[in-house]
Amino acid sequence: MNAIILSVGDELVLGQTVDTNSAWISQQLAAIGCDIIGHRTVGDDQALIEIAIAEAASLADVIIVSGGIGPTEDDLTRQAIAAVNEVELVVDEKWLAEIEGFFRKLGRRMPETNRIQAMIPAGAQLLWNTCGTAAGVMAMIKSIDVEGEDDNEELVATEVPLFATPGVPKEMKAMFTRDVLPWLKQRTGGAVILSRILHTFGQGESAVAEKLGELMTRGRNPSVGTTVSGGIVSLRLNARYPSLEEATAKLEETAARCHAELGDLIYGQDDVPLATVVARLLLQDPSHPTVATAESCTGGLVARMLTDIPGSSAYFKYGWVTYANQAKTDLLGVPAQTLIDHGAVSEATVLAMAKGARDRAGATYALSLSGIAGPDGGTPEKPVGTVWIALAHTDGVTARRFILTGDREMIRDRAAKMALTMLRFRLLGKELPF
Amino acid sequence: MNAIILSVGDELVLGQTVDTNSAWISQQLAAIGCDIIGHRTVGDDQALIEIAIAEAASLADVIIVSGGIGPTEDDLTRQAIAAVNEVELVVDEKWLAEIEGFFRKLGRRMPETNRIQAMIPAGAQLLWNTCGTAAGVMAMIKSIDVEGEDDNEELVATEVPLFATPGVPKEMKAMFTRDVLPWLKQRTGGAVILSRILHTFGQGESAVAEKLGELMTRGRNPSVGTTVSGGIVSLRLNARYPSLEEATAKLEETAARCHAELGDLIYGQDDVPLATVVARLLLQDPSHPTVATAESCTGGLVARMLTDIPGSSAYFKYGWVTYANQAKTDLLGVPAQTLIDHGAVSEATVLAMAKGARDRAGATYALSLSGIAGPDGGTPEKPVGTVWIALAHTDGVTARRFILTGDREMIRDRAAKMALTMLRFRLLGKELPF
Repeated sequence: MNAIILSVGDELVLGQTVDTNSAWISQQLAAIGCDIIGHRTVGDDQALIEIAIAEAASLADVIIVSGGIGPTEDDLTRQAIAAVNEVELVVDEKWLAEIEGFFRKLGRRMPETNRIQAMIPAGAQLLWNTCGTAAGVMAMIKSIDVEGEDDNEELVATEVPLFATPGVPKEMKAMFTRDVLPWLKQRTGGAVILSRILHTFGQGESAVAEKLGELMTRGRNPSVGTTVSGGIVSLRLNARYPSLEEATAKLEETAARCHAELGDLIYGQDDVPLATVVARLLLQDPSHPTVATAESCTGGLVARMLTDIPGSSAYFKYGWVTYANQAKTDLLGVPAQTLIDHGAVSEATVLAMAKGARDRAGATYALSLSGIAGPDGGTPEKPVGTVWIALAHTDGVTARRFILTGDREMIRDRAAKMALTMLRFRLLGKELPF
Repeated sequence: MNAIILSVGDELVLGQTVDTNSAWISQQLAAIGCDIIGHRTVGDDQALIEIAIAEAASLADVIIVSGGIGPTEDDLTRQAIAAVNEVELVVDEKWLAEIEGFFRKLGRRMPETNRIQAMIPAGAQLLWNTCGTAAGVMAMIKSIDVEGEDDNEELVATEVPLFATPGVPKEMKAMFTRDVLPWLKQRTGGAVILSRILHTFGQGESAVAEKLGELMTRGRNPSVGTTVSGGIVSLRLNARYPSLEEATAKLEETAARCHAELGDLIYGQDDVPLATVVARLLLQDPSHPTVATAESCTGGLVARMLTDIPGSSAYFKYGWVTYANQAKTDLLGVPAQTLIDHGAVSEATVLAMAKGARDRAGATYALSLSGIAGPDGGTPEKPVGTVWIALAHTDGVTARRFILTGDREMIRDRAAKMALTMLRFRLLGKELPF
């Protein structure tokens, strides 16, 4: 079974509202093994809604519409469904009584405009709305299918189920879960798509893809694809199988192969951010390690990431933002001569910053960063994006230089993530793999 | 002129990523008076991308595509464009050299897979990418148009411009703004939609709406609507008029009325963040004031915001993240007895933190914050969301308590913005208006 998801609303096509309904509906459909051909969004224009419904009916096995069933003049989804099927709108007396009762309870008279919400295309079914006045519609859209091949092609009249739900996410989700999903589940015959997202940080998308090799072959099942966001290269695994057992087993097998190819470059999966992974390593360590931060170019970003997590006070106590050279000397004891001889963005400076922070905080680890986030301040020897990061630990202090790309915000973000990554590999007892 | 926006990616049709690109592109198009017929989303399937492009070409005057131009096998937008136009992909030697140079600068060899990113359909134009390796494509899609009416219908070969940009929002936005928008602007002519967004922080949406009164009447032109994001209540003004002059004049008039109703509650407009507004006030002050930060619950977030801006080293020198009580005493000189008597989240503690930070940094201003970001740690007297913020200045130090709502991340974010707002009003020489 495959579906097309249609969203209706001027606010969507004008970009004033981001369409989150389609993504949510897709997730629900994928989870029961229903393929999604695509999403479409049209404005509050009856002719365009009609075209979209008719086209969807010619392509898909089922159509899910959200939006356009409110009480106002620009809500035209029910009219469009009726027009496509060439039928009239008829009043559903039961729902009309329900809406009238709803307004009575508020001590108000039902505005005449709300009457339209009790009307559905003749022959359609009304879907109850448990959290609003906009009832949904389930209609069989008449369409013409081509059956057979080549010379044996035949045009066959067919009917494609369409579910129209409210655009308000809360109402749509309640209706979809209660009425649409069970209907679809009975008809998908148990096929399942299971998904997992594995996250890496530190290497580019193409380098990750190269390591994955044939795992990324198109058409493979489970499929493996990559996406990048905020410097994080993520692997998206999707397993499509007739049964949950098979999908689970195959997904695990492919995930294990990804882990084998990429090792600890994979820091976590699904919704868990890098900072949380590092926090867990710190919290689970029986020696109760603590971390201090001494930041220049990142201006507090590493500290913020390390304290994003509830319970972070167990490992994070002290942080410094030493933006000025004077602050590096005053607060962390970086020798003024080091700054003069090597500059603020140098191995010597970050080593002294990390040592100073670790000593003063009495912490197990200290991370220090100094770099040129730009857009100004770069030189041929130290271009914008140059960031020195040091990690002071129980055996001394190590520093690494990175050349990071992007604008100021991206460089700061990636530098902070790189610092967390250095700490993560230290906590794993391993060398950085790049 | 009208447009269809096409998004490409399995992660979109599977609902793993919400498509924010289409909404952003729509906003840009609407602002220059370009109508949007609709949005379409298809997965990483070359045949479906081809169908979507061909259909869009038959309906729209321009097609904007985002996604599917990365270096991996599941990136198929450029191949689909070439197939629709029945041409080959050819190497753009200039961009190939650019990508190779990019990898050389990082001290790495370009993976062979990246070569595809320097290929464009024959006859197309390459769009430079200033923040990534995926160059864009501008191609004229061959299509057949029906001209004339009824018996005089005639099929006419036509060409519809298509712009293919990366799916990564940052890269897409940079490319769209630099290459696509100016091209479109030259060709829209005529009716104009001018927009402006005014931002407020510190009061709720309904309080802001109440002050705006009849300005928010539906159907008004220019229209005024409100949206909320990250605690910021924004006013969206849209003026639709036949000429740029008229739209500009009417928009200015409505904006002036909004300013009259809300005063300094409006901190800025369009894409300028609160931190930038505060930074500008600091940078423009002829006395060259400096700011220090002493943060507990926000863990470095205020420092990060104050250093988001290039040139921030002029006013930001010293910051402390004193998450532990010991750190508050050691680094800022908060008396241990104050912490015992009043607790870390108290007026006395933030006053001492701000004074300590200001003295130690030799700064003009110091902001301090201590609060309960949750989810744990709340009590009936100090519920989760309780945040004390102090501002030390030339005339002393003042503190305020706020009860902020939301989850941990929201409370931290709002607390930081509230601290910036306190500083902003001090720099304006005014009292907080709430």
